Amino acid sequence: MDTRLNPPAPLDLDGWIATQLDRVERALDRWVSVDASADMEHHAPADLMAAMRYAVLDGGKRLRPLLVLAAFEAVSSGLTHDYLPVEEGDEEVARRGAADPDLSGFMAGEAALRGACAVELIHAYSLVHDDMPCMDNDVLRRGKPTVHVQFGEASALLAGDALQALAFELLTPEGTRIESAKQAHLCRLLARAAGCAGMAGGQAIDLASVGLKLTEDQLREMHRLKTGALLQASVMMGAACGESTPAVQAALQSFGAAIGLAFQVVDDILDVTADSAALGKTAGKDAEQDKPTYVSLMGLSGARAYAQTLHGQALAALGSTGLVDTRVLRGLAALVVDRTN
Amino acid sequence: MDTRLNPPAPLDLDGWIATQLDRVERALDRWVSVDASADMEHHAPADLMAAMRYAVLDGGKRLRPLLVLAAFEAVSSGLTHDYLPVEEGDEEVARRGAADPDLSGFMAGEAALRGACAVELIHAYSLVHDDMPCMDNDVLRRGKPTVHVQFGEASALLAGDALQALAFELLTPEGTRIESAKQAHLCRLLARAAGCAGMAGGQAIDLASVGLKLTEDQLREMHRLKTGALLQASVMMGAACGESTPAVQAALQSFGAAIGLAFQVVDDILDVTADSAALGKTAGKDAEQDKPTYVSLMGLSGARAYAQTLHGQALAALGSTGLVDTRVLRGLAALVVDRTN
Repeated sequence: MDTRLNPPAPLDLDGWIATQLDRVERALDRWVSVDASADMEHHAPADLMAAMRYAVLDGGKRLRPLLVLAAFEAVSSGLTHDYLPVEEGDEEVARRGAADPDLSGFMAGEAALRGACAVELIHAYSLVHDDMPCMDNDVLRRGKPTVHVQFGEASALLAGDALQALAFELLTPEGTRIESAKQAHLCRLLARAAGCAGMAGGQAIDLASVGLKLTEDQLREMHRLKTGALLQASVMMGAACGESTPAVQAALQSFGAAIGLAFQVVDDILDVTADSAALGKTAGKDAEQDKPTYVSLMGLSGARAYAQTLHGQALAALGSTGLVDTRVLRGLAALVVDRTN
Repeated sequence: MDTRLNPPAPLDLDGWIATQLDRVERALDRWVSVDASADMEHHAPADLMAAMRYAVLDGGKRLRPLLVLAAFEAVSSGLTHDYLPVEEGDEEVARRGAADPDLSGFMAGEAALRGACAVELIHAYSLVHDDMPCMDNDVLRRGKPTVHVQFGEASALLAGDALQALAFELLTPEGTRIESAKQAHLCRLLARAAGCAGMAGGQAIDLASVGLKLTEDQLREMHRLKTGALLQASVMMGAACGESTPAVQAALQSFGAAIGLAFQVVDDILDVTADSAALGKTAGKDAEQDKPTYVSLMGLSGARAYAQTLHGQALAALGSTGLVDTRVLRGLAALVVDRTN
């Protein structure tokens, strides 16, 4: 049945998010775990895995995974996707693969779920390292003690390192029917967004900018790399799991850039206007550490107006994709701009 | 011409190593560098790259890259490989690719060189993080100040993180003719070897074992993960770039396991017998930190005998591959056992 000819049902964004969050949480719980077949002589890798799970599970808004899955659905509008409870997992995939050689739609959904979890692992590792004493020296994250407070600095360092490796392991499963080209493409997008010309480079700018006056261009550059690159990669990874033309990819890239920057502008606003309880992390740290922010550059009302401008740019970019149904992506963009924590 | 029918020329191991080291150094110099097209508003990513280059270039025995390239050559014996100076790089690859659709041998060599450099980046990042104050707190590495001494702790943390991301970026180049299946396979092997069930897990055991008495099984498990996994992955990545049967891969895996463990046994011996100048790092640290080692477990002569046993196992595994020419791999195994630094 070609559902493209039917008018789309009204969007239940909350329902969509709840469904996808449930998939993501269960997938992370399954994939960030000790391989029972590993049969270790020593408990330390299991202890390390405990720190990794602490960093990843039971917390976080999962914005990046939701963007991956929403972008994947947007480029796949009109196709039927068959989601499988992740617990059934590999055996079920193998069974279906043997019975039905054309699992391309199903495997695309599996690739998107892996992409969603991989990008969250990169985000989670960056928070673990960012919170360490030699970086931001923060003791509270998502309302809980940070990983180095809970497990010690050395374990936090190793847990972050292992989470990054696990992200790339998730993207390259053995013996699945996810096309190799898709696996390699997802690795490429994620590696670039995480590295020196992406997230890590942005954090280097952040470190080097404490106490300095940045121009708006320099501030934008910092955030384009520090948070924007991974948010943009989330959108691109979702698109890469489906089928999309270069024109659609370019429009989605603009969308990702706009909401990536909007996310940071709102972050700067919330650091001033929200309290630590609502944020689940220490509020007011930017001013205390004399970090340049959009609020220090533009004032509070200027920063709020800029967030609205970026929201408009994001919606315009989405409109230019020509995709049939971008309502979930629009809904997520609104959540980014209107969030309170 | 099928060269398999001709007797192989006498092996010039030193010449082979010099040639391959030159290729690897030039490739690392090219690939661990700021993308000139990036046009950054801020110098910090370039400063971060300086720390990454300091960690990677101009030092190190490059054992892992040599293993990748030697294993690749061993599974490719009799095939002609056409190495290109890496500076000519991408444009030349594109030109040849357009002129000649069958570049499979050439592209396999390119994949092996990328694999060689990627595994070295993982090794280099692990040293940067391992030297940090919250881990081994070492100030000397390869005869130079460690990265955190030279650039500060935060930059060392970020440089390590960015090096890991760059490793996976190197393995998934865009617009080359390296098969996607090969790219994904290389990422899979490297990610597993680097993560919780590999190098990071082994370092967690190492941390948890200070001051404890380990059994020989526990000590072997620690080193199988901490250094063995990446050395073994080097061999497997080289094999993955060529064509090899599952039986050959299994034999090479045994070879990699044996030399991986031998490497660590020799490391433990050298920590006792060599001085800091010869090692390029602080000697005697194991005993000072009360770390379990093969020397503390078996005594010096026992550890030396065990290294010889492992050497024998490695050669037996190589013999069982049935490969035509494994002389370079045999030569590298001898270097691992007989090295003095």
